[in-house]
Amino acid sequence: MITSKDNEMIKHVSKLLSSSSYRKECQCFVAEGARLCMDGVLSGAVVSAFLYTKNGMEKYSQEFEKILSASQRNFEISEPLFKKISDTNSPQGLLCVFSLDKKTLSDKIEKGKYYAALENIQDPSNMGTILRTAEALDISGVILSKDCCDIYSPKVTRGSMGAIFRLNIIIAENFTEYISEISKSGIMTYASTPRNAEDIENTDFSKGGIMLIGNEGNGLKEETIKACSKRVKINMKGRAESLNAAAAAAILLYRFQQ
Amino acid sequence: MITSKDNEMIKHVSKLLSSSSYRKECQCFVAEGARLCMDGVLSGAVVSAFLYTKNGMEKYSQEFEKILSASQRNFEISEPLFKKISDTNSPQGLLCVFSLDKKTLSDKIEKGKYYAALENIQDPSNMGTILRTAEALDISGVILSKDCCDIYSPKVTRGSMGAIFRLNIIIAENFTEYISEISKSGIMTYASTPRNAEDIENTDFSKGGIMLIGNEGNGLKEETIKACSKRVKINMKGRAESLNAAAAAAILLYRFQQ
Repeated sequence: MITSKDNEMIKHVSKLLSSSSYRKECQCFVAEGARLCMDGVLSGAVVSAFLYTKNGMEKYSQEFEKILSASQRNFEISEPLFKKISDTNSPQGLLCVFSLDKKTLSDKIEKGKYYAALENIQDPSNMGTILRTAEALDISGVILSKDCCDIYSPKVTRGSMGAIFRLNIIIAENFTEYISEISKSGIMTYASTPRNAEDIENTDFSKGGIMLIGNEGNGLKEETIKACSKRVKINMKGRAESLNAAAAAAILLYRFQQ
Repeated sequence: MITSKDNEMIKHVSKLLSSSSYRKECQCFVAEGARLCMDGVLSGAVVSAFLYTKNGMEKYSQEFEKILSASQRNFEISEPLFKKISDTNSPQGLLCVFSLDKKTLSDKIEKGKYYAALENIQDPSNMGTILRTAEALDISGVILSKDCCDIYSPKVTRGSMGAIFRLNIIIAENFTEYISEISKSGIMTYASTPRNAEDIENTDFSKGGIMLIGNEGNGLKEETIKACSKRVKINMKGRAESLNAAAAAAILLYRFQQ
């Protein structure tokens, strides 16, 4: 049983939880809790390490057995140490290190399907909620600009309720160019922006395509809007500025795929 | 200039920021930052105290003057002390104590208008986002059950983007009974619940009424659902469980008032 925070695996996990650049370097990330770990296992993600406490093992015995057999390496650690490294207030005593096996990445956009594209979304809670919403509404995939916040941070994986494991996610090296090429290929791309835009209630979304959602404060970049086939907006009867990115995304994606 | 955390006003503000029961006892709450303080002042809320730093005064001079003249008492405090009591990571150096003058409370539900009712919403971020969404969509008022999280906590006031000052908010002593009486009076009350419910796409909301949204994990209580005129749901093509309360509220309220 590991009890020291100087243990190499503990140092590795702590750094994965706190550092986005370290996650990129190691090509892996951490998910905590019975449900989220099981989401990863069931989605076929590679579990490179499984850390658990005696309490976690006993309380979540079913999940424990499944994660244990899916994982490459297993470590029992002490309760106080788990509490110390955990990113949550009441840790369940189960934590997995998943490999970023690029399984969720793809670059095929299919005609007739519905996608979301996020440009420079910065808040991890918004990102987690939008990914969760996209999955609930059966969006076929999510395209992210490179300047979005890291989707493998603990806040995003948790907020996504496991959608991170199941969604088809594309990270576009050059977002505007990527959208521009898709628009040219005949797939509809919709820029959500309050200016000079059509009310989503009047738009025919039956052919599918991509709904673009921009940064919390600044919206989509001007050049990205120009690269899109159409501008659309939510008709807000109240104070127009007052809709946060995740709430706007929920309405846009709901209307989009109806 | 106040420099000590042992100052009575500083102790008062710190306690208001951290304790919901103290807010109730004192019948006041704190809002931070130029925009939120101005939202309060412009809405006519009573500013019982205004705390500021030299930096805040200089950087937000326009807002500073307006808040200063609206406030009953003003205190300059040192930068390090402001940083210590502030609830934000990068404090702007402006903070107001507002009185809960019940100005936002009312108990009249008007026929033909659109209201939201929240039962046992626990997460302050969800609460803030839902209030902000309600305002953006021009909802006429929000009814809260007594077991909702405190809407005057710093997380809610901030997340609401000032909607807390402008929205008509009713806190129902007995939520289920309140809804039951409204239903009996002929105003439509819609319980959002996944079970035995009509798809919101098929519902005629033209007469207005109240859209009820339940707790994050458990939804609406069974007796509350029974007290409603109708059950409605969001048709989710993907994983049905995966829509957080704020995202669900955004879709429901959008469709409701369209």
